[in-house]
Amino acid sequence: MEAYMSSMGSKLQMLTTSDHASVVSMNLFVALLCACIVIGHLLEENRWMNESITALIIGLCTGVVILLISGGRSSHLLVFSEDLFFIYLLPPIIFNAGFQVKKKQFFRNFITIMLFGAVGTLISCFIISLGAMQFFKKMDIGPLDIGDYLAIGAIFAATDSVCTLQVLNQDETPLLYSLVFGEGVVNDATSVVLFNAIQNFDITNINATIAWDFFRNFIYLFVASTMLGVLTGLISAYIIRKLYFGRHSTDREVALMMLMAYLSYMLAELFYLSGILTVFFCGIVMSHYTWHNVTESSRITAKHAFATLSFVAETFIFLYVGMDALDIEKWRFVSDSPGTSVAVSSILLGLVMVGRAAFVFPLSFLSNLAKKSPNEKISFKQQFIIWWAGLMRGAVSMALAYNRFTSAGHTHLRGNAIMITSTITVVLFSTVLFGLMTKPFIKILLPQPKHQSRSMTISSDPTTPKSFTVPLLGEAQDSLDDLGGQDTGRPSSIRALLTTPTHTVHRYWRKFDNAFMRPLFGGRGFVPFVPGSPTERNPQNQWQ
Amino acid sequence: MEAYMSSMGSKLQMLTTSDHASVVSMNLFVALLCACIVIGHLLEENRWMNESITALIIGLCTGVVILLISGGRSSHLLVFSEDLFFIYLLPPIIFNAGFQVKKKQFFRNFITIMLFGAVGTLISCFIISLGAMQFFKKMDIGPLDIGDYLAIGAIFAATDSVCTLQVLNQDETPLLYSLVFGEGVVNDATSVVLFNAIQNFDITNINATIAWDFFRNFIYLFVASTMLGVLTGLISAYIIRKLYFGRHSTDREVALMMLMAYLSYMLAELFYLSGILTVFFCGIVMSHYTWHNVTESSRITAKHAFATLSFVAETFIFLYVGMDALDIEKWRFVSDSPGTSVAVSSILLGLVMVGRAAFVFPLSFLSNLAKKSPNEKISFKQQFIIWWAGLMRGAVSMALAYNRFTSAGHTHLRGNAIMITSTITVVLFSTVLFGLMTKPFIKILLPQPKHQSRSMTISSDPTTPKSFTVPLLGEAQDSLDDLGGQDTGRPSSIRALLTTPTHTVHRYWRKFDNAFMRPLFGGRGFVPFVPGSPTERNPQNQWQ
Repeated sequence: MEAYMSSMGSKLQMLTTSDHASVVSMNLFVALLCACIVIGHLLEENRWMNESITALIIGLCTGVVILLISGGRSSHLLVFSEDLFFIYLLPPIIFNAGFQVKKKQFFRNFITIMLFGAVGTLISCFIISLGAMQFFKKMDIGPLDIGDYLAIGAIFAATDSVCTLQVLNQDETPLLYSLVFGEGVVNDATSVVLFNAIQNFDITNINATIAWDFFRNFIYLFVASTMLGVLTGLISAYIIRKLYFGRHSTDREVALMMLMAYLSYMLAELFYLSGILTVFFCGIVMSHYTWHNVTESSRITAKHAFATLSFVAETFIFLYVGMDALDIEKWRFVSDSPGTSVAVSSILLGLVMVGRAAFVFPLSFLSNLAKKSPNEKISFKQQFIIWWAGLMRGAVSMALAYNRFTSAGHTHLRGNAIMITSTITVVLFSTVLFGLMTKPFIKILLPQPKHQSRSMTISSDPTTPKSFTVPLLGEAQDSLDDLGGQDTGRPSSIRALLTTPTHTVHRYWRKFDNAFMRPLFGGRGFVPFVPGSPTERNPQNQWQ
Repeated sequence: MEAYMSSMGSKLQMLTTSDHASVVSMNLFVALLCACIVIGHLLEENRWMNESITALIIGLCTGVVILLISGGRSSHLLVFSEDLFFIYLLPPIIFNAGFQVKKKQFFRNFITIMLFGAVGTLISCFIISLGAMQFFKKMDIGPLDIGDYLAIGAIFAATDSVCTLQVLNQDETPLLYSLVFGEGVVNDATSVVLFNAIQNFDITNINATIAWDFFRNFIYLFVASTMLGVLTGLISAYIIRKLYFGRHSTDREVALMMLMAYLSYMLAELFYLSGILTVFFCGIVMSHYTWHNVTESSRITAKHAFATLSFVAETFIFLYVGMDALDIEKWRFVSDSPGTSVAVSSILLGLVMVGRAAFVFPLSFLSNLAKKSPNEKISFKQQFIIWWAGLMRGAVSMALAYNRFTSAGHTHLRGNAIMITSTITVVLFSTVLFGLMTKPFIKILLPQPKHQSRSMTISSDPTTPKSFTVPLLGEAQDSLDDLGGQDTGRPSSIRALLTTPTHTVHRYWRKFDNAFMRPLFGGRGFVPFVPGSPTERNPQNQWQ
């Protein structure tokens, strides 16, 4: 932090005129972010585009313009930094995902999600590593050791859930959404854990002991990260409930929620855990307990502020990746052999597709074996969409690739340069091309479930659609909290049909939640309503 | 920006274990921020403390603890960076100030505010410079040229409005609040403008031409900055009104408002204008037009999110200043002659008090001459409070002092080290001691106006107190927008009494606003209400 602050201080120098170029860059970048939002809004009804692709394409175009203006010297306003990504951009996205996720769907499919996210990612990583080893050894791309190949596996096993989720819809395809989204979060965590393990372990001689250590380490990371996230969330709920912050200022509540969420991420980093998993579970707990303990306006503010931050961070990332892609420095190394670069990228893209197919279909089969009701099984069409939706590679891949192939200080090696450019190619290609095709694909493959579920949403779940007027919105917020009850007694809806089989674990959890957790930490129905509201008593504090 | 990103990338390295210390610092800092919020909440009813002092004292205590743990080697988690302050922390505070200010009060006292903020700051700066020149020349504090003395004037003419406003209350003492607050904003801008002018102009031979240039430059900066802020605000209002963002996503609206506000600040920096003034006027315009064009939930979110960001930034700054104050490096230079340092600090503190007295009382007298009604005049007690409230020096002074006395690279000069430590001493002393005394002072000096105005607020202005229930809150928001009308017809209240004298300018403005501005840019009463609300039509987009 100290180094960061001081380096910022010495480098930025916004007040002095010497670094006026950085002010220009920042202006351009903020203006481009605004442009992305406006254009994304205008293209909302478009059947091909989505927000990520818009941002990526705007970034690419800006890169071209800058490249032309600077006479081919530079294309980017900023250099991709994994730290900026992991410290500032990723936490709000993942936290918001946890905060807004439909918890009931998520926990109902928990086993399948874990299968896909953890086991699937391992399979995918293994296949990509093995394939890369086979193909690249015969090609002229410089020396890569076994650690590099495993790193390549981890890099390209990291799916980009952000892009996918802009296409899938929580209300239209709840099962698919929860599977793809849940897999995305667990996959994010798994890839990073895997990558760190590869960086730190001595891979040169793998044996049973190391594999066991690896496995134990992974389980430890997963459990510890989850527990930390849950704990931080519960502490925030307890503090806000006990001290009754709304009495003085609604802004303090929101500030505390934000800071506690961020603290959970940083604490995970402190203990070498997976910040992504931690902040995700912190989001879930906060939406289940903390969110109900704050005042009405804090609730609306928290929900929308988190979503806005996440939205801006996503747009930022895609704009960033788009701009960075044309960085002339990286392409210089591969310009003498464009064929190799294209071949490497194509091989990697192929491996990504094969690696994903190798776990989606078998694991879906496994998962279907365990399910009794045919409604709960994953159909082949759905499996295909799950496979397709996870093909996009995004900022996590970029960040890991930069960490592996540039941080060691030997960027000038041919092999490393090729790996970086190939990663960029795969990210751009998969995001833009696969991304463009996802919307039409889903329309073709799932024509009736979509209409069915849409009508279901409207008819049976009156709390889900957000209405314009605020009192209804306040009520609608409760759909955030659909982990606890209320689904019985709606036999007409598909959702109710799905939940009718007695989920014993869920029922015990709900009992426990109502008996112990909610009275202690607050939550829906457990916040005493004071008619003479606290803010009414101290109107002047509202403005502080 | 590029240098920034790359330096961040090279320095932070959160993923690697090498820089684990920075993760520890960041954790501690976020945890301290949470602690500040909680403790500030618990001390809310305390008659001495306020949020700034709490954060400052927590920062100081942490500094002591770190100093003890590290064995006297280091006291701070992070080094004070003027860039972090000016680029990330100040804009949200000033924007929020503009967004939440009571516009009618502000514009009614516009002339007085300008007198205090611009002319007053010049007088104060002049007196402090002259006094410092007289006193310091006889003391042994190393060589300081005329530019340094003028810079000292500008540094110590910058009041800390943030701290003051936590004590004064918009509802209880509207006139005082608007005067002190308005002065604070204009003063911030004037000090920075003055400081930059001193840095850039050749001061060694002052003559009429240079003075005229200086004056012209100041007027240009003031007008251009204001226009830029108004323009950016109007553009945001127009875009959001025309494209009707609420149709797709309420988060896009809030994101666009935030980004446009930040863009206005950065644009001002780009054109070498005063970002503080720009973002302040942008906030005013956004609360008058843009805010009315967004959906209900966006309104609540925007209002509270801006306030929260501002609140966190304020707490951050005071914590930061408190921690940085004990930095052992700076004190090493003055440790051989503690007497000199104490003398310099005392002289500066005295000059600050004299300099402020030298303009508050004469300018109040001038301002009172122009007012006809006795109610509008500033009483002596009020003048005293205005004088007192502006004695605190804060982060702006720190940032300017660092810019002047460390950026040139000769920090090891005795004179510079003394100036830095004296600035810290003055900031700490004035904020803590004067800050602690402000609450009791106001209670002693203004016992009846307080009750009077409080009862006035409750009786005559039903929209001002914030209520707990959301529909009322939505209505209460309109107090944000009290520039336009509705004050006539309430002759019983003091406020109405004050406004009864026909303010011709205000009336013309209101006519113009209703006839041209609001139909074009939206605003209260000019947003067509669609019964089938847009978000109801696309419920699934709510979650994007």
